[in-house]
Amino acid sequence: MTKRRKTRKVRIGNVEIGGNAPISIQSMTKTDTKDIAATLREIAELKKAGCEIARIAVKDRDSINPLKKIIEKARMPIEADIHFIPQLALDAIDAGAAAIRLNPGNIKRQEDIKAIVKSAKAAKIPMRIGVNSGSLDVKAKSMSDKMVKSALNYAKILEKAGFHDIMISLKSSDVLETIEAYRKMSRLCDYPFHLGITAAGPFVNATVKSSIGVGTLLQEGIGDTIRISLTDNSVKEVEVAKYILSSLKLRRFGPEIISCPTCGRCQVDLLGIVKNLQSRLSTMDRGPWTRRPLTVAVMGCEVNGPGEASCADIGIAAGKGSGVLFRKGKIVRRLKESEFISALIKEIKACYEYTKSVCNGPRDYRRR
Amino acid sequence: MTKRRKTRKVRIGNVEIGGNAPISIQSMTKTDTKDIAATLREIAELKKAGCEIARIAVKDRDSINPLKKIIEKARMPIEADIHFIPQLALDAIDAGAAAIRLNPGNIKRQEDIKAIVKSAKAAKIPMRIGVNSGSLDVKAKSMSDKMVKSALNYAKILEKAGFHDIMISLKSSDVLETIEAYRKMSRLCDYPFHLGITAAGPFVNATVKSSIGVGTLLQEGIGDTIRISLTDNSVKEVEVAKYILSSLKLRRFGPEIISCPTCGRCQVDLLGIVKNLQSRLSTMDRGPWTRRPLTVAVMGCEVNGPGEASCADIGIAAGKGSGVLFRKGKIVRRLKESEFISALIKEIKACYEYTKSVCNGPRDYRRR
Repeated sequence: MTKRRKTRKVRIGNVEIGGNAPISIQSMTKTDTKDIAATLREIAELKKAGCEIARIAVKDRDSINPLKKIIEKARMPIEADIHFIPQLALDAIDAGAAAIRLNPGNIKRQEDIKAIVKSAKAAKIPMRIGVNSGSLDVKAKSMSDKMVKSALNYAKILEKAGFHDIMISLKSSDVLETIEAYRKMSRLCDYPFHLGITAAGPFVNATVKSSIGVGTLLQEGIGDTIRISLTDNSVKEVEVAKYILSSLKLRRFGPEIISCPTCGRCQVDLLGIVKNLQSRLSTMDRGPWTRRPLTVAVMGCEVNGPGEASCADIGIAAGKGSGVLFRKGKIVRRLKESEFISALIKEIKACYEYTKSVCNGPRDYRRR
Repeated sequence: MTKRRKTRKVRIGNVEIGGNAPISIQSMTKTDTKDIAATLREIAELKKAGCEIARIAVKDRDSINPLKKIIEKARMPIEADIHFIPQLALDAIDAGAAAIRLNPGNIKRQEDIKAIVKSAKAAKIPMRIGVNSGSLDVKAKSMSDKMVKSALNYAKILEKAGFHDIMISLKSSDVLETIEAYRKMSRLCDYPFHLGITAAGPFVNATVKSSIGVGTLLQEGIGDTIRISLTDNSVKEVEVAKYILSSLKLRRFGPEIISCPTCGRCQVDLLGIVKNLQSRLSTMDRGPWTRRPLTVAVMGCEVNGPGEASCADIGIAAGKGSGVLFRKGKIVRRLKESEFISALIKEIKACYEYTKSVCNGPRDYRRR
């Protein structure tokens, strides 16, 4: 992994973006903003899943009062998503938004932009220049150049007004185009980047596209906050975001299951066991200690099983209707298949108790 | 994208690997090899999903006769997966396997390896040196170095016996370790690579890890055939593999849905529409013409909708219970929400008919 790109730090509410802060996870509500209860419910679910910033569409004047009430009650900073109508940005700032996202493709008049900047400056909140390939009005050779040019032009207007609390996103539904755009932009400014692939599609395809796009950039040290777009439940967006960050060891969110795909050698119901373990882990107390990195191997046979299981903190390598429990590379004991789940849960809990007793807390937790 | 790494070409049955052949998709059966009917059913499902090579575990002598029958009836080349018992490799070659995978961690005696090489050479089939981080016996500074060293040592034995029809895989359940290993190896030999993350875990996490790992390497021109390991149905492995290749424009497998994640602006049931469209597309005739690249945008509102919809081959940008149908950037007509699916399917079919009439076939199809 390359060193992370040096970026300015901005703050969305209590969440730091850039300047070496942990890479934060955001999502966007899919409920009608005017339905306050439904939107608050979605935000609560997002928070429980690990989301740290929620974006909300502010479509019209009738959304401003609901936005205000949502901001008051949401236990998470809210970024207002503004398009077409500059007045809505001013109103959203008045309503208490912790950040504003503008789309250079549809809020263009200099005097409008300047008025929004003035208001954001007074409220001490940052602005995101959120470029999407689907709404661009600049000319350049390639789509990535168009996105970069659009963002740079917009940033200049903000800078001229003495405003630097800027985040930038350059999203296309094309993975390669998006990667190219962020790479180019990373050499041209030090503003923190919000990463994402836009309109990435239905769940599986969007997960693949986002993992490749966001994952490639993060490996190059590019990216300060991420939002995974899925045509699916917003909680799943957070789940995918967490897996991307943990796969790259940028953050950890508790136990990770290492499990084999199974094959003709497997003589236990590994898929069932892993599903069961996942569901048990998801209902475990999500307190700070359970965010400690921990690998739990569940391997279906003797080929890679013992190896993988012994590298993991805890592991089981299964045989015929039975298995061997490992702890930090050492065999603990033999188990029946029916004992796998309870033994693993017990070991995981013991690991947390142990960590709690010897250190001051998991790193990721302390930094939030 | 970097130019693809130059590699020697090997053949698994009718599928070319390396030497600029299209990147092929493989999977591994999860059924008991001795259950011939179940294994053949799984192979048929894999084929329907787009899998091009199936690997089968050969666990013991009792698996050899079933393997032979499976090879005779499977409409796909079969790679035999061998561990621990050298004789099984010889028997699998006799049974007609199109390729043999050996694990350097557990078939080690020089004379055993030489006997297998001799038999593979006579049968004109390639061998894969399939290193897994969970079963290694070499010493080196890092895990990636260990994997590389293990594969190189093994390759030397094969080379000394005059055998060069070699494929190499270096799989760890750690994404960064795996990427590092393949990168190092790519500078040390010209054998084609089989890419994958091993024991990647349950569906979503494994999809994320595999997309990042395999996607990163493919962008660097590394990789000739891929296998996605999921603790889930093998058909899903093929689905994820196809999405990885199509996201990077390395291969295309028919229509791609570009759809927005929806937000408070959306006034149609976009999730429902997209799911419905997906299921309609999956049951469409999978003949060669339907493998033509085609982007179908389904956008929930006016913000990026018209832009994304107009860049796509076909698209809908929805408004309140209605939408606008685009074809190659031009508005065709306004539609009611209830007409979305049938209109899109009709347009997709018309696109295929058009392609069929003006060219010799989609590129990806001609190359297989």
